[in-house]
Amino acid sequence: MNERILEAENLEIRRFFALDSRAYEEGALPVNTKELLGLVASLVLRCDDCITYHLVRCVEEGYTDAELLEACSVGLIVGGSIVIPHLRRAIATLDELRAETSPDVS
Amino acid sequence: MNERILEAENLEIRRFFALDSRAYEEGALPVNTKELLGLVASLVLRCDDCITYHLVRCVEEGYTDAELLEACSVGLIVGGSIVIPHLRRAIATLDELRAETSPDVS
Amino acid sequence: MNERILEAENLEIRRFFALDSRAYEEGALPVNTKELLGLVASLVLRCDDCITYHLVRCVEEGYTDAELLEACSVGLIVGGSIVIPHLRRAIATLDELRAETSPDVS
Amino acid sequence: MNERILEAENLEIRRFFALDSRAYEEGALPVNTKELLGLVASLVLRCDDCITYHLVRCVEEGYTDAELLEACSVGLIVGGSIVIPHLRRAIATLDELRAETSPDVS
Amino acid sequence: MNERILEAENLEIRRFFALDSRAYEEGALPVNTKELLGLVASLVLRCDDCITYHLVRCVEEGYTDAELLEACSVGLIVGGSIVIPHLRRAIATLDELRAETSPDVS
Amino acid sequence: MNERILEAENLEIRRFFALDSRAYEEGALPVNTKELLGLVASLVLRCDDCITYHLVRCVEEGYTDAELLEACSVGLIVGGSIVIPHLRRAIATLDELRAETSPDVS
Repeated sequence: MNERILEAENLEIRRFFALDSRAYEEGALPVNTKELLGLVASLVLRCDDCITYHLVRCVEEGYTDAELLEACSVGLIVGGSIVIPHLRRAIATLDELRAETSPDVS
Repeated sequence: MNERILEAENLEIRRFFALDSRAYEEGALPVNTKELLGLVASLVLRCDDCITYHLVRCVEEGYTDAELLEACSVGLIVGGSIVIPHLRRAIATLDELRAETSPDVS
Repeated sequence: MNERILEAENLEIRRFFALDSRAYEEGALPVNTKELLGLVASLVLRCDDCITYHLVRCVEEGYTDAELLEACSVGLIVGGSIVIPHLRRAIATLDELRAETSPDVS
Repeated sequence: MNERILEAENLEIRRFFALDSRAYEEGALPVNTKELLGLVASLVLRCDDCITYHLVRCVEEGYTDAELLEACSVGLIVGGSIVIPHLRRAIATLDELRAETSPDVS
Repeated sequence: MNERILEAENLEIRRFFALDSRAYEEGALPVNTKELLGLVASLVLRCDDCITYHLVRCVEEGYTDAELLEACSVGLIVGGSIVIPHLRRAIATLDELRAETSPDVS
Repeated sequence: MNERILEAENLEIRRFFALDSRAYEEGALPVNTKELLGLVASLVLRCDDCITYHLVRCVEEGYTDAELLEACSVGLIVGGSIVIPHLRRAIATLDELRAETSPDVS
């Protein structure tokens, strides 16, 4: 779908997407901190797709469940109970991500 | 799903959930008024899951359709036309809740 | 200022203002419940002017501080810590409203 | 579903729906400009149903893809990356609308 | 103040500001339509500084009061009564802008 | 003012304040990371008082301007141009905080 958007004949949209990618690259702050910022910003703004995206990236960056839940607790307290349905889905997504990557123990 | 969250090893999230439950208990205001506040707050913040939750509780508390629609009209006017898709789903949910609880007339 | 808006040559704005006034009149729900709904909706949407307006009306409707703080606690828990600066100003406004209306005890 | 809402015994909701329809009729501004305003307002407030509604109307009003993408780029830059999932769905909807109305070339 | 921000040693912020300026330049849509989109987006997101900025630009682009009020009425109906304090300030700003630019009739 | 709120006879509000303080204490994540999360969450939700509070704390935690601007750039790109007035005030606040704490060079 990103490809479809990038094909679109609109230069500002393409530039915004480039800028959005650049924002999470290594800089004064490390990549993993930036992804955690993206996760909590997505949680308080209540965007499931954005939460899932940053959760996948945070797992790739090596955060533990305890760290991710703690970041989510900050988002929950800042954003209030209206965040709860998104938090539930975030935890379900996290469980799936861990299941996919866990070693086969059979 | 709440159980999964409550199992989660994060004390702040568990405390927030406890506080969220406590907020709707009898106090200076009666329970039914507090649930109506929860419904309208959920409507203007446009959270379908939250609206459904408070709508179920408001029906349990004995509100009539006329009272619930009037509360929703306050939410609609405060929150604007952007609330309309959520209002539609709320009315569909209310119809289902009434159908479930209506006496068998066959 | 409302007069300036109502003078404005725009029929939809005038009609919206009429509808907004009508929404808080007696109906299936009593006036005081509707004002409390307006207060909590304004709090979670974080609009100081709207909070002040409904707080004045709620005091006129005879709510006690305990009742108003409890309604605000619902708004705080739904809306999260981002609501705190508005809650602070609401409590300061409530203190002023009580000071204005309290009997002279000198 | 609008019919179900309009049947509802609540005068304020019916009046709001009438006002909402009136807002997009010809006035000082032409209908097509008003629909474009509705589209961008819906995009920055991140309401998929509202975006789809105004996108359908904008296509009916004869806007080209280049014009609609440019309006969306304003919404994206005002509203930020949190708008991206809604922009993706808007572009997919636009593709479907164009496919439905394009001449059969087989 | 923009200068202070542009001096800041952060490339993403500077790029975002460049993109934000570019978004309102002539393209598939004329400049005046884009400024009106910016005005209504700012109104429904309830940002006074943004509203003032786009109002100044809309007056420069030659819109009449009737046209600007009609655009604002779309924003009011989409965004609801929570928009009213911002609409009041917008109308006061518009009055000031017209007073500044009106010919001396003494 | 917090004292006034904590004196208030409402247990839920006092508990929320306690939970809000606890959320930024050392845990699975270090304090400085949590404060940065609070800053970006406040920026995307556009709350000046909250931004100032977390900016003060972030400076106390030893972040450099380059790090804070980079965190702000994530907030700007997630939240869009509507965040700009708050970003401006944040940078002005940061300049003041640095001026207060810089050694006297006269």
